Amino acid sequence: MYLAKVYVTYKESILDPKGEAVHDALHRLGYTNVDSVELGKYFEIKLIAGKQPVEAEVDEMCDRLLANVNMESYRYEITEMEA
Amino acid sequence: MYLAKVYVTYKESILDPKGEAVHDALHRLGYTNVDSVELGKYFEIKLIAGKQPVEAEVDEMCDRLLANVNMESYRYEITEMEA
Repeated sequence: MYLAKVYVTYKESILDPKGEAVHDALHRLGYTNVDSVELGKYFEIKLIAGKQPVEAEVDEMCDRLLANVNMESYRYEITEMEA
Repeated sequence: MYLAKVYVTYKESILDPKGEAVHDALHRLGYTNVDSVELGKYFEIKLIAGKQPVEAEVDEMCDRLLANVNMESYRYEITEMEA
C-alpha cells in the first residue's frame, strides 16, 4: 500500500479570495505580522499498485481530477506504507 | 520571514464526504486501486516574527481560526525563508 500526499495550490497569477479572507481574519485577531496566506487543498490517497507505476498514476489523477491545471499547480509525495 | 505550512484534516472518527466523493470519482475514472481518499486544507502562511516565538503563534492560529479542533486535527512545518 502506498500513501500519496497531494498539495494543490493556486498559481501565482490567480487571485485566492479564501486565502485573502483568512489573512484578514488573522489580522483582526491581532496577528498583524502575517504577510500573506494561501489556501490550498490537501489530499491523502491510499492506493495499491495498479497497472502503471504509482507515481505516473498519481500524476495522471492530478491532471484529470484533483487539480484544475489552468488555475492550480500541484505537487505530491509518495511513500510506501508498512503492511 | 518565515513560511508556515499548515495541514488540517478531519479526525479519524469524523465522516469526510468530500474525500468520499473524490474516492468515488477516481473509481469511476478507472483508478479502482485507490483504497481511500481524505481531503483536507493546506495553508501557506508567510509571516515575520511577532511578540511570541513563531511556532507558538502558528499553534495558536490553528486553535483559534484555521482548524475546528472538535473535528479536525492539524500539523505544521515552519521554515525560515531567504530574505
